[in-house]
Amino acid sequence: MRGAPAIGVAGAYAVALGGLNARATARDDFLKEVSDIISVIAGTRPTARNLFHALERMRRAADIDGDVAGIKAALVEEAVRIHEEEAGATLELSEHGAALIPGGSKVLTHCNTGPLATTGYGTALGVIMRASETGKDIKVFATETRPLLQGARLTAWELKKAGIPVTLITDSMAGYFMAKWEIDCVIVGADRIAANGDTANKIGTYSLAVLAHEHGIPFYVAAPTTTIDPSLATGADIPIEQRQPEEVTHIQGVCIAPDCEVANPAFDVTPCRYITAIITEKGIVKPPYGEWG
Amino acid sequence: MRGAPAIGVAGAYAVALGGLNARATARDDFLKEVSDIISVIAGTRPTARNLFHALERMRRAADIDGDVAGIKAALVEEAVRIHEEEAGATLELSEHGAALIPGGSKVLTHCNTGPLATTGYGTALGVIMRASETGKDIKVFATETRPLLQGARLTAWELKKAGIPVTLITDSMAGYFMAKWEIDCVIVGADRIAANGDTANKIGTYSLAVLAHEHGIPFYVAAPTTTIDPSLATGADIPIEQRQPEEVTHIQGVCIAPDCEVANPAFDVTPCRYITAIITEKGIVKPPYGEWG
Repeated sequence: MRGAPAIGVAGAYAVALGGLNARATARDDFLKEVSDIISVIAGTRPTARNLFHALERMRRAADIDGDVAGIKAALVEEAVRIHEEEAGATLELSEHGAALIPGGSKVLTHCNTGPLATTGYGTALGVIMRASETGKDIKVFATETRPLLQGARLTAWELKKAGIPVTLITDSMAGYFMAKWEIDCVIVGADRIAANGDTANKIGTYSLAVLAHEHGIPFYVAAPTTTIDPSLATGADIPIEQRQPEEVTHIQGVCIAPDCEVANPAFDVTPCRYITAIITEKGIVKPPYGEWG
Repeated sequence: MRGAPAIGVAGAYAVALGGLNARATARDDFLKEVSDIISVIAGTRPTARNLFHALERMRRAADIDGDVAGIKAALVEEAVRIHEEEAGATLELSEHGAALIPGGSKVLTHCNTGPLATTGYGTALGVIMRASETGKDIKVFATETRPLLQGARLTAWELKKAGIPVTLITDSMAGYFMAKWEIDCVIVGADRIAANGDTANKIGTYSLAVLAHEHGIPFYVAAPTTTIDPSLATGADIPIEQRQPEEVTHIQGVCIAPDCEVANPAFDVTPCRYITAIITEKGIVKPPYGEWG
């Protein structure tokens, strides 16, 4: 399971499923078990905001009068509601974002942000697909997104399936194509957005934002409001998941490096000054960010 | 065979070997055969200047009075001389460059530029190794360098062998570490340098230069003067080799992408304004470039 919105929805369903399978029959014991389940799930991934947002909703959903059966039903209902709302939000934000993309645009995107990552229509990829659906001639550059190659394995596949022309490139080629004026805008998803608009997203996003800035190319972030973390003033406090070295040294089981020290931060933070606009289901927000409507 | 200086040396030896094995016995026929060999070798790789520089020298070496046996000997001598001069140049430039790197530096490098790529001491990696040899505490971030992973497969290995601490990262992580102020300078090799200092080097170099510029981090290019092409006023006319899509879609035989359009430029051009200094065997040249001594 990956993609911040999908992780949030999956987390909610995991709590509902855990509740349905709980052994406790007394209300207090059951609530303790649900709380423990939520803690375990909260500990799985540190960066994406959507998971914590969903878990907070599930915790509140459990906090009702009634017996265990009633709370179980409430948890299932809430998980379904989170799923539906998240899917709806991606459709709405895709509609808003599509209006920003002129016909004939060549759009660069990073990582995977389509239906596979969102349980809905998609975020950055949703915007691209919606723009294409409305009849605009859109071409996409998809970065392969090392180390886990979500761009190559998922985004290129989803775009091909949608019939949208896609050119796969390595992450290192983005600057080359920007310098040749072959990229009209960049659009990416988000894992967590601080109150000021600083955005954590897949590693490499920050480099793309700096490059876009240097070339005067608009850089858009597309995410549902569940990705926004108003408790963080800036991105400096967003925890960045550090993952296993094997994701860098091995590609689908094939070893590509000697036994050496490896760094593998899974995300980076793009300061808000590099972000032209953030697209949510509530509309398009331009800097200064902070008023999320 | 890869690495601009190594390609030049290999090209020279290929001409010498072709000459030794030539069928022609008459002088004019022999010279025609050597000329054809040079043309074939010149057609193998378009970007690196060193190859053309070496081939021009071999062409001149053949242009002497004397019989076929004499010209054959002259070709072998010239190839050996090119090899020795290129190896010597990398040692000298490494010495010059090492003086630029303060002790305690964390240095980012891209692709592979050590002995494996240069038949000598190395260019960017030579500078790093020389700085380390002189007792400076140097740590290196090596980008894996997609698509062909020369950084992971060769640079990490060469640094480990030399006992220099190295951290392997994906190309997309450079910005993350610069933003954390964990990189003190960037040093790369070159495939061709125009008269104004614009530098063609492995794809991804330009992105690193823009990132270094944005963070106020010095960005050095290390190359022998055989990499300089004074016939080109700027980098705009440097031909960029476009390579097979399979280098992007397959990693050591493993398919990582659907059947889709792929771009695979092997090099990019970094405008001279992003380059803090160019290090050659003749010394350190700062902008404005053009006076190569």
